[in-house]
Amino acid sequence: MLHDLPKAAAESAAVGVSRIALGVEYKGSRYRGFQRQRAGVPSVQEALERALSRVAGGHPVALSCAGRTDALVHASGQVVHFDTSVERSMHAWVMGANMNLPGDISVTWAKAMPAHFDARFSAMARRYRYVIYNDQIRPAHMAEEVTWNHRPLDIELMREAAKAFVGTHDFSAFRARQCQAKSPVKTVHHLQLLQHGKFIVIDVRANAFLHHMVRNFAGVLMTIGAGERPVEWAQQVLQARIRRTGGVTAHPYGLYLVRVEYPEEFKLPQRYLGPHFLSGLADHQDSCLNNG
Amino acid sequence: MLHDLPKAAAESAAVGVSRIALGVEYKGSRYRGFQRQRAGVPSVQEALERALSRVAGGHPVALSCAGRTDALVHASGQVVHFDTSVERSMHAWVMGANMNLPGDISVTWAKAMPAHFDARFSAMARRYRYVIYNDQIRPAHMAEEVTWNHRPLDIELMREAAKAFVGTHDFSAFRARQCQAKSPVKTVHHLQLLQHGKFIVIDVRANAFLHHMVRNFAGVLMTIGAGERPVEWAQQVLQARIRRTGGVTAHPYGLYLVRVEYPEEFKLPQRYLGPHFLSGLADHQDSCLNNG
Repeated sequence: MLHDLPKAAAESAAVGVSRIALGVEYKGSRYRGFQRQRAGVPSVQEALERALSRVAGGHPVALSCAGRTDALVHASGQVVHFDTSVERSMHAWVMGANMNLPGDISVTWAKAMPAHFDARFSAMARRYRYVIYNDQIRPAHMAEEVTWNHRPLDIELMREAAKAFVGTHDFSAFRARQCQAKSPVKTVHHLQLLQHGKFIVIDVRANAFLHHMVRNFAGVLMTIGAGERPVEWAQQVLQARIRRTGGVTAHPYGLYLVRVEYPEEFKLPQRYLGPHFLSGLADHQDSCLNNG
Repeated sequence: MLHDLPKAAAESAAVGVSRIALGVEYKGSRYRGFQRQRAGVPSVQEALERALSRVAGGHPVALSCAGRTDALVHASGQVVHFDTSVERSMHAWVMGANMNLPGDISVTWAKAMPAHFDARFSAMARRYRYVIYNDQIRPAHMAEEVTWNHRPLDIELMREAAKAFVGTHDFSAFRARQCQAKSPVKTVHHLQLLQHGKFIVIDVRANAFLHHMVRNFAGVLMTIGAGERPVEWAQQVLQARIRRTGGVTAHPYGLYLVRVEYPEEFKLPQRYLGPHFLSGLADHQDSCLNNG
């Protein structure tokens, strides 16, 4: 069915190829990550490509993304691009995709881009939030959307410890074995700890991330926040440059890719900083982060 | 298996019966409401009774609840009671129940109560929150835990309209056909509209509620907030006292039973006003509501 080209689509193919960028929000719980897997394994990419192909009247659509999030990891600010010879309004891409997507994936905006824009390679910075629900009793709500920690966490200790990670460092100690990055050296622009009711939010912005880097930061910071290790341990783990010194990788549940930043020239639409249940915080966040 | 009384449990039965109250939080999405149904139909009551029976070493446990929430409706502050001849510490009831419950139900506290306490009949007031996510794009996160409304809602219009519902009225216009309450006259103590990022929260406290009453309030207030009806329509619907004048019953997704209030003498534990993703708001709420 997807190979059946309707007349209108076939005609528009003559006008040339355009590049479209999309903002994407998803709940990762049902998916084995963003990236397309072998047949039968659900991925966000496959669901998106299928929905966009429908909007494109059957033309196949192949996506590139800014951040290949892991299994169970969420996004509120993922950015993807694709090339198409089909002409649709930006409104039609957004609304048409959402009509054809399952309820746990939403396209939030669409914009026509110059051919040299690339969702992955043009990105200058990525930003993640790791949301901890800190209470003795496990949360019956949003169980797949926050990481529960029942030990009382001291956010001031976590803030002190987080300072060790800011700047340009060799982050080998926070890198999963299967990480494919060429270099373990990355630049963390800020790493902030925010409190919002029973949530503690780790908000981290870097030029790029190693595989499991945020979850490994979260594991170390929660251990220090619970008083099981001193603040200085963060620095020691970083300097050891060996993964096994850094304790366990924290659960994926509370992790969100919240923003990808591109050069000014591309003028990408900006939504509030997600996830939406923190949106009451977003403005405050942004102004704080100018100092970060 | 549940009828198999271990020795310790059988012995403790001799010491007499005590009444225990529990605080309960749940995500209602997988359940056909609080109340036990025929076999094979999942209910919160059945899951709780089964878990508590395990803690009681096989003794059957029969619960009464403060508010029989509908299918798909959530609670952060449900209160239940049961009688038992088994002696357990309050900590053991909470932790034991949570070990035996699915992840979408949590017991938040337990307290021994005098025999004249009744979760349902001692309650003086109930409080619900109806959480609307107001954005053009459907939320990929918390899809079962908020009600999405894509039309821009004017919260000031909703606040004006809500005033008509405060006080003692015949609420027949907001009552489901299958409602079993003896009288349609109830007293609404407050009905407040709160904004929190992209959320609009309808917070309503009354001595008791008719079936679908909050969802029918929500339906009318969202219609007015979207500008489809004038503010005065709320008063007109109320005065008509006929259900069909009030438009559609709003979706159950965003509805939470957040608190049940009892006479001072019972000294029930108070948690923050839920659901937890609004907990940053809770203190503010409470102080506001003293004027309400």
